[in-house]
Amino acid sequence: MNKTLAGVLTLLAVACGFSWAQAGDGSRPATSNAPSSQYPRVYPDLRVAFRVTAPGVQKIQVGGGDGLGKGPFDMVRDEKGVWSVTIPPAQPGFHYYWLIVDGFQCNDPGSQTYFGYNRETSGVELPDKVDFYDAKDVPHGEVRMRWYFSKVTGQWRRACVYTPPDYDWNTKARYPVLYLQHGSGENELGWTKQGRANFILDNLIAARSAKPMIIVMENGMVAARAGAAPVAMAPAPAAGRGGPRGNEAFEDVVIHDLIPMIDATYRTMRDREHRAIAGLSMGAGQALQIGLTHLDTFAYIGSFSGAIRGFDLKTSYNGAFADPAAFNRKVRLFWVGAGLAEPNMHKTAEDLHAALDKAGIRNIFFECPFAHEWQTWRYDLNDFAPRLFR
Amino acid sequence: MNKTLAGVLTLLAVACGFSWAQAGDGSRPATSNAPSSQYPRVYPDLRVAFRVTAPGVQKIQVGGGDGLGKGPFDMVRDEKGVWSVTIPPAQPGFHYYWLIVDGFQCNDPGSQTYFGYNRETSGVELPDKVDFYDAKDVPHGEVRMRWYFSKVTGQWRRACVYTPPDYDWNTKARYPVLYLQHGSGENELGWTKQGRANFILDNLIAARSAKPMIIVMENGMVAARAGAAPVAMAPAPAAGRGGPRGNEAFEDVVIHDLIPMIDATYRTMRDREHRAIAGLSMGAGQALQIGLTHLDTFAYIGSFSGAIRGFDLKTSYNGAFADPAAFNRKVRLFWVGAGLAEPNMHKTAEDLHAALDKAGIRNIFFECPFAHEWQTWRYDLNDFAPRLFR
Repeated sequence: MNKTLAGVLTLLAVACGFSWAQAGDGSRPATSNAPSSQYPRVYPDLRVAFRVTAPGVQKIQVGGGDGLGKGPFDMVRDEKGVWSVTIPPAQPGFHYYWLIVDGFQCNDPGSQTYFGYNRETSGVELPDKVDFYDAKDVPHGEVRMRWYFSKVTGQWRRACVYTPPDYDWNTKARYPVLYLQHGSGENELGWTKQGRANFILDNLIAARSAKPMIIVMENGMVAARAGAAPVAMAPAPAAGRGGPRGNEAFEDVVIHDLIPMIDATYRTMRDREHRAIAGLSMGAGQALQIGLTHLDTFAYIGSFSGAIRGFDLKTSYNGAFADPAAFNRKVRLFWVGAGLAEPNMHKTAEDLHAALDKAGIRNIFFECPFAHEWQTWRYDLNDFAPRLFR
Repeated sequence: MNKTLAGVLTLLAVACGFSWAQAGDGSRPATSNAPSSQYPRVYPDLRVAFRVTAPGVQKIQVGGGDGLGKGPFDMVRDEKGVWSVTIPPAQPGFHYYWLIVDGFQCNDPGSQTYFGYNRETSGVELPDKVDFYDAKDVPHGEVRMRWYFSKVTGQWRRACVYTPPDYDWNTKARYPVLYLQHGSGENELGWTKQGRANFILDNLIAARSAKPMIIVMENGMVAARAGAAPVAMAPAPAAGRGGPRGNEAFEDVVIHDLIPMIDATYRTMRDREHRAIAGLSMGAGQALQIGLTHLDTFAYIGSFSGAIRGFDLKTSYNGAFADPAAFNRKVRLFWVGAGLAEPNMHKTAEDLHAALDKAGIRNIFFECPFAHEWQTWRYDLNDFAPRLFR
């Protein structure tokens, strides 16, 4: 493009109220924004500038996930009613955030929404010094929405299924399956939308670091079983957890509805040696419970930032760990991870790791520098997936 | 379940802050709500109750799409800071809406979000006396996210692809393709999330009323071409339209990137007799422009609530209509629809229909009772799809 044309386009754009993606101060709109939103903007040092127009409001604050810093942050109003704040450098990765408008918690219209805390929530993506979860110029798999009827809940449910890049043309191939769960208050879209699981696998598969695999993501916030109506028609618990009854119902959904449907629908390998289960936070608890009590179904188990309470080698998980030699023969991978900036989760994970090591039970312990947030779980998946189905 | 257990569960649920899905007044949480949200609630006569808790706020209103009624509606505050309003009976179907909190437009935390007006927006679904777009107990197709590289925009883009129920097991079959576009300020998810295109087709295919087909939905809000950087990196026009330059770029994306990728990736039938294009509002304009100027590529064209301005039989769309006999030989279906409650769009559609009839050009004119909203476009698709590929 010649300079005159560029100049004309610049003027045109400025006249139309555009500003360039990268400002003179090095800031850029966050990639998590709605397409036409200039704010929030991210600086190279990971400061983040928030801005909204709200002349009639008395006070606005920005609140957010642990990695965003010690908020809430007060926004400052100018004479035109534009509210702004630039917060100190935050952690890399994805952070949920929200506005508090005269005490009312709501979304920033500038952001796309991401389901967390049992509601649609704003999010801001800050760059890290890694690129393993970027959408790169490699073959991409698909992310598919699959509806199926659950006899356990008596409802049509939706699973989110990643198929690897070669799935549609390599029609004689069969694939191992990873069942991968989100955390409390999230849903079946979390692992792809916030977690970028599809891009992580695309990149690992392109580098031949992970085997091509199918990933199945379902909604672990199951309220209750079909028989328990009218509770089954009630909303999810207000506390935002599946709760014991919900987790039990979810276990039944996975074992009796989801796995049979997946094996009947996709070209899967249908034995335990080609089935893995993992999850984050509440989903880690579900993966441990479902995996360890169904070792005839799963040979690979991963706990990402799980809160493992009252662990007992002899009795926990129906005594799955009671016979270390039998466990080692049966379980091909037992993987525990946590972030250094989530001290409680890190301690329970490290304690479990130490107890298993002491008992001679083969396990992997993985840590990364982040908080109880998606950046930790992206790193987890990037370490976990290459170890599967070997 | 016995009555004692039901009673215990009721008490438990009430103690935990649950309320039943259907209240004594017949109202139910809207199906468009976040899973645990009791509000908005919909009454049998299509009144809608909105409620949020915001003790620190001075004023809240509810605004929304045409079919929701003549808003904005003032909410009323009680002594605890809970704001409520029940609005008069609204139109059936899906309506975008929003809260205006001391003049600041934001989402209702009780709603899921739906991309419209270039931002994530709340939505409320009101039942109609039809069931053609419900998720029924029939075989369901998949909705797939497919990433691909566009040479036109110089970016990775995402297409949303519906594959019919038999696609994955009927592996020798090839399928016709409908390219289906959303409206201004929406995105590639609109037709499935707001429009329920996948359920409409599942039901039509199950009833053998429509041929099994693939539907491709892309993002029509293309800012500009790759060569035109830095405008290509700028956000979409503030007015919320693709604009002439954007529409031209989108045409190139469809013809040069999207169709070749779809035909290379899916088991499609690759001739014009098995390719259709349609869209709503801005997308209707794109479908007319792209379809009528590429009759070597498409044989079926649909305009849903398009604003057809300055139509001239001889010159519009590169003179596609200038030779009626040639048009009738070439175009297998030319379909124009509008809602009775969107008078401007209805008039241009009816005028076009009349002009074509007068010229002896075969066309279908379809009308339904609704506004410039998704309910109209669901009815449109339900009439349009059965006529394709015959």
